[in-house]
Amino acid sequence: MIIVMASRDRKDIEYVVARVEELGYKAHLIEGVERTVVAAVGDERGKFRLQSLESLPHVEKVVPILKPFKLANREARPEDTIVKVGSAQVGGNRFCVMAGPCSVESREQLIETAETVKASGATVLRGGAFKPRTSPYAFQGLEKEGLRLLEEAGHQFGLPFVTEVVTPEQVPLIEQYADMLQIGARNTQNFGLLKAVGKAKKPVLLKRGMMSTINEVLMSAEYIMSEGNNQVVLCERGIRTFETETRNTLDLSAVPLLKKQTHLPVIVDPSHATGHWDLVGPMAKAAVVAGADGLMIEVHPKPAEAFSDGPQSLTLPHFRALMDEIRKLLEYVGKTL
Amino acid sequence: MIIVMASRDRKDIEYVVARVEELGYKAHLIEGVERTVVAAVGDERGKFRLQSLESLPHVEKVVPILKPFKLANREARPEDTIVKVGSAQVGGNRFCVMAGPCSVESREQLIETAETVKASGATVLRGGAFKPRTSPYAFQGLEKEGLRLLEEAGHQFGLPFVTEVVTPEQVPLIEQYADMLQIGARNTQNFGLLKAVGKAKKPVLLKRGMMSTINEVLMSAEYIMSEGNNQVVLCERGIRTFETETRNTLDLSAVPLLKKQTHLPVIVDPSHATGHWDLVGPMAKAAVVAGADGLMIEVHPKPAEAFSDGPQSLTLPHFRALMDEIRKLLEYVGKTL
Amino acid sequence: MIIVMASRDRKDIEYVVARVEELGYKAHLIEGVERTVVAAVGDERGKFRLQSLESLPHVEKVVPILKPFKLANREARPEDTIVKVGSAQVGGNRFCVMAGPCSVESREQLIETAETVKASGATVLRGGAFKPRTSPYAFQGLEKEGLRLLEEAGHQFGLPFVTEVVTPEQVPLIEQYADMLQIGARNTQNFGLLKAVGKAKKPVLLKRGMMSTINEVLMSAEYIMSEGNNQVVLCERGIRTFETETRNTLDLSAVPLLKKQTHLPVIVDPSHATGHWDLVGPMAKAAVVAGADGLMIEVHPKPAEAFSDGPQSLTLPHFRALMDEIRKLLEYVGKTL
Amino acid sequence: MIIVMASRDRKDIEYVVARVEELGYKAHLIEGVERTVVAAVGDERGKFRLQSLESLPHVEKVVPILKPFKLANREARPEDTIVKVGSAQVGGNRFCVMAGPCSVESREQLIETAETVKASGATVLRGGAFKPRTSPYAFQGLEKEGLRLLEEAGHQFGLPFVTEVVTPEQVPLIEQYADMLQIGARNTQNFGLLKAVGKAKKPVLLKRGMMSTINEVLMSAEYIMSEGNNQVVLCERGIRTFETETRNTLDLSAVPLLKKQTHLPVIVDPSHATGHWDLVGPMAKAAVVAGADGLMIEVHPKPAEAFSDGPQSLTLPHFRALMDEIRKLLEYVGKTL
Repeated sequence: MIIVMASRDRKDIEYVVARVEELGYKAHLIEGVERTVVAAVGDERGKFRLQSLESLPHVEKVVPILKPFKLANREARPEDTIVKVGSAQVGGNRFCVMAGPCSVESREQLIETAETVKASGATVLRGGAFKPRTSPYAFQGLEKEGLRLLEEAGHQFGLPFVTEVVTPEQVPLIEQYADMLQIGARNTQNFGLLKAVGKAKKPVLLKRGMMSTINEVLMSAEYIMSEGNNQVVLCERGIRTFETETRNTLDLSAVPLLKKQTHLPVIVDPSHATGHWDLVGPMAKAAVVAGADGLMIEVHPKPAEAFSDGPQSLTLPHFRALMDEIRKLLEYVGKTL
Repeated sequence: MIIVMASRDRKDIEYVVARVEELGYKAHLIEGVERTVVAAVGDERGKFRLQSLESLPHVEKVVPILKPFKLANREARPEDTIVKVGSAQVGGNRFCVMAGPCSVESREQLIETAETVKASGATVLRGGAFKPRTSPYAFQGLEKEGLRLLEEAGHQFGLPFVTEVVTPEQVPLIEQYADMLQIGARNTQNFGLLKAVGKAKKPVLLKRGMMSTINEVLMSAEYIMSEGNNQVVLCERGIRTFETETRNTLDLSAVPLLKKQTHLPVIVDPSHATGHWDLVGPMAKAAVVAGADGLMIEVHPKPAEAFSDGPQSLTLPHFRALMDEIRKLLEYVGKTL
Repeated sequence: MIIVMASRDRKDIEYVVARVEELGYKAHLIEGVERTVVAAVGDERGKFRLQSLESLPHVEKVVPILKPFKLANREARPEDTIVKVGSAQVGGNRFCVMAGPCSVESREQLIETAETVKASGATVLRGGAFKPRTSPYAFQGLEKEGLRLLEEAGHQFGLPFVTEVVTPEQVPLIEQYADMLQIGARNTQNFGLLKAVGKAKKPVLLKRGMMSTINEVLMSAEYIMSEGNNQVVLCERGIRTFETETRNTLDLSAVPLLKKQTHLPVIVDPSHATGHWDLVGPMAKAAVVAGADGLMIEVHPKPAEAFSDGPQSLTLPHFRALMDEIRKLLEYVGKTL
Repeated sequence: MIIVMASRDRKDIEYVVARVEELGYKAHLIEGVERTVVAAVGDERGKFRLQSLESLPHVEKVVPILKPFKLANREARPEDTIVKVGSAQVGGNRFCVMAGPCSVESREQLIETAETVKASGATVLRGGAFKPRTSPYAFQGLEKEGLRLLEEAGHQFGLPFVTEVVTPEQVPLIEQYADMLQIGARNTQNFGLLKAVGKAKKPVLLKRGMMSTINEVLMSAEYIMSEGNNQVVLCERGIRTFETETRNTLDLSAVPLLKKQTHLPVIVDPSHATGHWDLVGPMAKAAVVAGADGLMIEVHPKPAEAFSDGPQSLTLPHFRALMDEIRKLLEYVGKTL
C-alpha cells in the first residue's frame, strides 16, 4: 500500500506510521517536494483495513500495489488451467464451442438444436432451465423439466451440458444433472451463490457481470476457488456502456488481459454481448483470433418465435456456416475443436 | 409495440402482421415515405415474445411503448405509498434517516453509534451482519451475533433496524430479528432473493444496482410486489460511470424521476454513492431538497479503524452536525423527522 | 511517481532507476514482499515522460502522486476566485443565475424571455447565436444577428450576457459583444479553442464535457489560465452514462469535489443534465444546497415550438416560480442573488 | 416520428395532430388500450422541431424512426466507398495499415520508424505534428517542422502520410503537406473543424470520440460530406467505460455495425483503444477478422523514451512480427495489403 499524505505535519505522519505498524506492516517514509508518502510493506491482500486510513483528513489517498486475488493469479500458477466438462475440454490447444437455445422451450426445439450443434462441431450443449428474467411476468423457464430434457438431449447426442444456477439451494439438484454450472452475469457478485458452487463437484462457468471490472471478476473466481473448486472458466459477455445500438459492448480486450493475469480459461459469449444475430459471427471469429479458449453461442430453430433472446439467436443453418469458418480460423491459431 | 420494417415487401409485412395477431394483438399498418411501421395494439406488458421479431432480417427494430411494471406504477396507484418500519415511517410528510455503521464490529462500537444517531434524530438503525464483500478474504460480518447486537442496540434506544439479506435461505432468520430487510446493490437483480423477500412479512429496502437503469430497479420492485409484499422502499446509492474520483456517481435526478413513475418511497445513500465522508453532507442535503423521503448514512465512532467502508463513514460529531443542518432544511420542504 | 516493478531482477531495476535520474528525479527503492517499487521524487507535473516507462515488460505500472494542474489548484490559491461578468458576480456569497433560451430564434422570443428572467432575479442572460448541433441539417443559429439581438436585449434589461464560442476565429467577434464566453460540453478538450479564449479579455464559462473526468476539466481550465485568463467559471452539466431516461446524468457530487480541488467558482446546468423540464427544478434546488455558485437554466416562451432543446426548457411562469423557491433556499445557505 | 401521448384527452391529442401537420407531416392516430400514439409520417431527417413536443406535459415521449444521416447512409449508396490516400487505398479488397509514432520527435526517430513500417508492409505513415494534449505543460508537437519531416520520410520511403488537424485555420497548411487529414477523438464533434475538412481536397480519417455513439459518429461524417468531401474513413479507437485497466474499451462490434449502416470504410486503432502495447497485437488481429478495412498502429524505436503514448507503442521488431501474422490472416479473409 502507498499512503499519500495530505499533511506534512510530523504528528499526522507519525499517527499513520504507527497505525501501519499496528496492522502488521513495515512503514517506509518518502519525503517528496510537495507530498510525503508512507509505503506500507507487507502482504496487503486480504487485509483491507489500511484503506480506512483514507477517512483521515490528513491522508489524501491510499493506493494498493498488489492484485488482491491469489488462487486465480497467474503468478501463483504460471501454466494454463485446463477444465474438463464431461467429454469436452476448455483450455490448452482445444477450442470449446458451447451452443444451444437461450431457454429450453420444448423437447422438439431442444432435440433439433442439439442435433445440429453436435453435427456442426459444438462440444457442449447450453440451455436455460431456470431463467433469471428482468420481468416477473416473463417466461421463467421449464425448471426441473428443462433439466430432464437437457439430460436427454445431451445423452442422445453425446454432448455434456451447461445450465445456469440461480440460487444456492438449486446447486445440489442441478449438480446431479448438469456437467457444468453457469453463474450468470447478474450473479457475478452474488457471493452466497459463488460459495455454493465453490463447494460443488462440477466445473463452473463464471460470466463477467455487465458492471464487473476485470479485477472484480477475478475476485469472484477467487470466491469459488477459495471454497475448493478450481475448475473455473471465465466468460466475457459484454459490459454496459453508453452505447445502446448493441445490447452490451463486447470487451474483447478482456481476453488477452485476463489471460495475462490468470491461468483460468477464458471464453466469449458474442450473443449476449451484441444482442443482434448478425453481429454474432464477426465477434465469434474475432474472439478466436484474440486468444479465447472457446465460445458460447445462442442457437434456435426459429428465432422469431423464441420465448427469450430471439433477436440474438442464430438459426441452425447460420450456426453451421459459422462453424465452418471457425474451423478454418482454428487452423490459423493452431487449435482444434 | 411499434415494429419498424426494414423491408417494404408485401410478404414480409404480412408475415409480421400475422405473427402480431397470432400473439393476440391488433395490428395497424402505417406506411411512411421510407419505412413501413406495424403498430401492435394490446397490453404488451408481460408479453415479451414480440421482441423476438427483431431476429427477422426484414425487421429493423421493435420499440415498446408501455412501461413494463404494473404494481409499482404510479398510474396504477396515484397516491404515495407510506412504509412503516417498526415505529418509523418512510414516505408522506415524514423524513426518515437510517444511520449506523457499515459493519457491526463489536458491542461497544454499535451501542456508542446507536446512542448518538438516536440522540441526533435518526429513526432507524442500520448495520451489516452478513456482509457481501468483493474479496473472500475480507471481513464477512459477525453474522448471527451481529443480528443479536443490532436487536439489543435497537431495543435499548428505541430504534427499529434494517440489515442486509444476502441469500434466500437467510430470510426466515433475519426476518425474526430485523424490522426491515435490505437488498444490496449487488443483488438488485438477484431474482431468487427478490422472490424470497417478496414472501416475507417485513418491509424491504431495495437498493438500485450500480448498473441498474431506472426501469430495471422498478422491475425488481415489481418482483417483490408480485409475491405479495407491497412494503418496498427504493434507494438510490450511486451508479457506476467512468468517473473514478467518487466511488460511484450519485444519480440524484433519479429521485424526482422515480417519484414520477412510482408511488413507492425513495431514499438516498450518499455514503456509498460518494465514498468520501466529506462529500456525504452536501449530497445528503441535496437529497432532501430534491424530494427524497429519507437518507441512509454510514456512521462510525472511529472511521480510520473501521473494518469496512471507513473512508465514507461520518464520525459521531460530524453526523450530529449534519442532522442539525438537515432539520433546518426539512422546515423548508415542509417535512419532519 | 510510483513505479511498480514486475521484475525483481537487479538489472531491470537499475535501468529504471537510471532512467528516473536521467529525467531529473531522485529515485527511492522500496523492496516489498512481492514487489519492488521505485519512487521518483520531484515535481512530476508537466513531465509526462516517466509514464512511458510502462512500456517496459518489467514495469507493472506507473502511478502519479500529484494532481497535474497548478494554476487552478486550490493549494496554489486557497481563497475562492470571484469572477465578474459585467454587473454580475460568480462566486463568493452571491449566487448567479444565468437564464435564457437555448437558441436565439427571434427578437420577440428573446426580448420576452429576457424581460421575465430579469424580473425573476436572473443576473446574466444566456442565449446561443452559433449553435453546435449534432446534425448538419439542424438549425445552426442566427450567428452574428443573434449576437446583435443578445446585445440589444441585454442592454434593454441591464443584463450582461454569455454565449457560446465554437471556433477560435470567432473569439475576436464574440468578445466584442458578449460579457462572457462559453465553451460548450463538446469543446471541453478543444485545446485550440481553449488557448484562444485564454487570450481573450472576457471571463470564460467552461462546461464539463459529457465524458470529462474531474481531472480533465481542471486541466482544461489550466489551458485557459496558462494563456493568462484567470476568469474561469466551471459548469457541471451532466455526464454520459448507461442511463438513458435522462439526457445525461447530473453529477452533483462534482460540485463539492471541484470546490475542494480548485479555487474557481462552480455552477450547474440542470437543463442539459436532465433533458426534461420537470426535473430541472428539483436539480436546480439541489445544486444550491450542494454548494454551487450559480445555475444556468434554459427558458423559452413556448418550449413546444422551440428550434432546439424544447423538452428541457422551462416556460416563463415555471421559471418565475422556481426563482421564488431558490430565493428561499439562498437564505438557508447564506447567499443572495 | 412516433409521438406517445400521456393524455387521452381529445383536446391534447388534437393539439399534437395540428402541430404535426403544421410542421409538414401527415398524422396517423393509433388508439391503444392504455396509450394513444400519433405517428407523424414524412421525412423526419433534418427536421428536429417535432422533438420539442416532448416539452408538453401530455406527451410522454417522441421516438424517431429514421436514421438521421443521409449521405453516409448505406441505403443511399449500397456499394462500398473506396478511399484513395496517395498511392494507398482504404476499402474494397485491400487492407490498409497506417503506422508510425504518436508524435514526430526527431528526424532520426521518424526515418528509422518509416523505414521499418514500410519494409513490414504498412502503406500509410502516421505521425503527430500538432498534438492535442490533456495538459498545457506536455509536449505539444514539432508543428510545422513535424510536417516537413513527415513529408521527407514519406517521400524517401514512398509512403503517403496522415496527420492530425486540430483547428480550422491549420487546414490549408496541413492540406499542402499531408495525404490525409485526421480528426482526433476529442474533435469528433468539433463541428467547425468538421466543416473545414469538409471543404478540403484531401481524404479525412474521422476518429470516433471516446463518448460518441455510432449514430453520432455517422452524423459527424455527414457534416464532412455535406460540405462536399466524400472521402471519409471512420476509425474505431475505443470508448470510455467504467473499466480502467485498459485506456479505453475497444468496441470491436462497431466495425460490423458501422459497415451495415454506412458505405464508408472503417478501420481500427488498437493502440489508443487498449493503451498497452501487449494488447495491440491480439486486438489488431481480431479487427482483421471482424471485417475492418485497415488498422492504425503506433510504433516507436524506443517506446520507453517516447515523448507521448510510450506504453501503447510497439517496438520495431514487434511491429514486424505482427505484420507477418496479419499477412496470414488476410489470406483467410481474402484481402491483400
